[in-house]
Amino acid sequence: MTSSAKDIEGALAPAQTVLVVSHMRPDGDALGSTLAFARHLERLGKSVHTWNEDGMPEKFRYLPGSERITPPPSEPRAFDAVVAVDTSTRDRLGSCLDAISHAPLWINIDHHISNEGYGDLNLIDPSAPAAGQILFEYFESLGVALDEIMAGNLFAAISTDTGSFQYRGTDGRTFHAAARLVEAGVNVSALSQKMYDSHPRRHWNLLRHTLNTAQFLCQDRLAVFAVSRAEMAAMGALPEDTEGLITHLRAVEGVVVAAFYEELKDGMIRISVRSKNPSVNACEICQQFGGGGHPLAAGVRLRGSLEAVMEKFNATLCHEIERGN
Amino acid sequence: MTSSAKDIEGALAPAQTVLVVSHMRPDGDALGSTLAFARHLERLGKSVHTWNEDGMPEKFRYLPGSERITPPPSEPRAFDAVVAVDTSTRDRLGSCLDAISHAPLWINIDHHISNEGYGDLNLIDPSAPAAGQILFEYFESLGVALDEIMAGNLFAAISTDTGSFQYRGTDGRTFHAAARLVEAGVNVSALSQKMYDSHPRRHWNLLRHTLNTAQFLCQDRLAVFAVSRAEMAAMGALPEDTEGLITHLRAVEGVVVAAFYEELKDGMIRISVRSKNPSVNACEICQQFGGGGHPLAAGVRLRGSLEAVMEKFNATLCHEIERGN
Repeated sequence: MTSSAKDIEGALAPAQTVLVVSHMRPDGDALGSTLAFARHLERLGKSVHTWNEDGMPEKFRYLPGSERITPPPSEPRAFDAVVAVDTSTRDRLGSCLDAISHAPLWINIDHHISNEGYGDLNLIDPSAPAAGQILFEYFESLGVALDEIMAGNLFAAISTDTGSFQYRGTDGRTFHAAARLVEAGVNVSALSQKMYDSHPRRHWNLLRHTLNTAQFLCQDRLAVFAVSRAEMAAMGALPEDTEGLITHLRAVEGVVVAAFYEELKDGMIRISVRSKNPSVNACEICQQFGGGGHPLAAGVRLRGSLEAVMEKFNATLCHEIERGN
Repeated sequence: MTSSAKDIEGALAPAQTVLVVSHMRPDGDALGSTLAFARHLERLGKSVHTWNEDGMPEKFRYLPGSERITPPPSEPRAFDAVVAVDTSTRDRLGSCLDAISHAPLWINIDHHISNEGYGDLNLIDPSAPAAGQILFEYFESLGVALDEIMAGNLFAAISTDTGSFQYRGTDGRTFHAAARLVEAGVNVSALSQKMYDSHPRRHWNLLRHTLNTAQFLCQDRLAVFAVSRAEMAAMGALPEDTEGLITHLRAVEGVVVAAFYEELKDGMIRISVRSKNPSVNACEICQQFGGGGHPLAAGVRLRGSLEAVMEKFNATLCHEIERGN
């Protein structure tokens, strides 16, 4: 049962202290949506905190007001309400969860189809290509005038989560939102340059590494690449630098599924999966192993050596490609 | 003096045979605009031809109706009117020009600031980020209902020429056009997959070559790469495969100007220049050598060996970067 913007606004009305949070390893939609909603609540006179397990990654510092996002404190805190955006399960909040000592009201605003509605009020719209799109419509339905901070964050959220207005779910609503956000003050080219046209040199090195080491398997329908911790360290690369690399593999003609294997600090292997064919459902494949996401873009973390995990998961992916084609 | 859509529509009314053409080495805007306007004229009952010096490159075959674009015939032909779209000077039509024996009416619809208005009627709007945007507004102002062929081509024209809604000139008008084109039947994700997410494997090889051979000069503010004919041949790459490679260089943090040098069949070196800083005007730099384009994206062709041209032009670029910064 999905709540309306009006319901949520009403429920939040008495709250004085509100925490806005989103998922670990945040992307532009998670952070932009956090900042836009936090700004909205602040304009209503509330005391607002914004946390993310990973704090504010360097690459998203272009988001207006980004400095307010911090990692959660070590001492748990109480809030009148918690608003989770772009977060399919409560677990994805990571260490933020442990830092909330008390919160009588949970609001859950998300576009992941796998979201089961863990909030007291839930606004879930899987047809929206970004949580930022849901928030844009939330504000529009309430007649909230967007300031530049809100507009910039919502534009960045929508743009980054749609791959710059390309992915499934991008429709007339999305372009309508973009047009209105421009009217509210977004400078598209200046913001886009920060979002897409300004990667550190180490990102370039990482892309080169990807292109030089990628493998084409399963009759060239599966493209995969991997980076070990040692390779990341040798290139001086940060975890956030790997974002977007997989799109280069997916873009090769004939490739149905692209996968990226990344060795994490905790010894887990983080797998990102992108499918170009709706009959090969990346979300369902990842869910088999305890992960989740969207039909064409999903992920999962597995324990094991990079080689062993790759061998096992590649075999699964090839099997699913053969079944789906 | 810019003519209105109504003026142009009136001037074209008596024409029975019309040729729609665009510039050599066509991009998505040139071809999409050609096809959209040809379709419009055809729906008005005219006999319409569509030529391009390079015919229809394989990578743009996704454009609706693409099969109608051919190279010009060897025997010159007469037309009642010629409509040139996205073409800054008549010369850029290349061999199409020689194949027109007679044309009493020239229409020139373009968004290049360097366009001097070579038509009998000219509709030039440098504020439009694509010729396709001008045509969208042309049709909108006349109340022309767009069919799927027109909508798909206009969307592709606007999307490709704005770098997927990112470059300077992308504004509320652009997103408004995109929203209307979606309403007219464009499937954004399906079309975007064809535009951006489907490169032949040889393109991947070329990108790898680029990343492995690029040089960072002028205190890392100038990034350049080159491909010789021999290297292109060894990779089985086509001229059209080089499009977009330069964006990877431009995207590196600290790079102000990116340049790409490509050895052509005729022994000329084709130089593409991209600037991230408006005070380093790529168009003016290229104009010094007889080229042209836009302030942040321009090009020129020079005679000489790849090495000699690079040395000379890199020095000019570095000089301009030092002057502009």
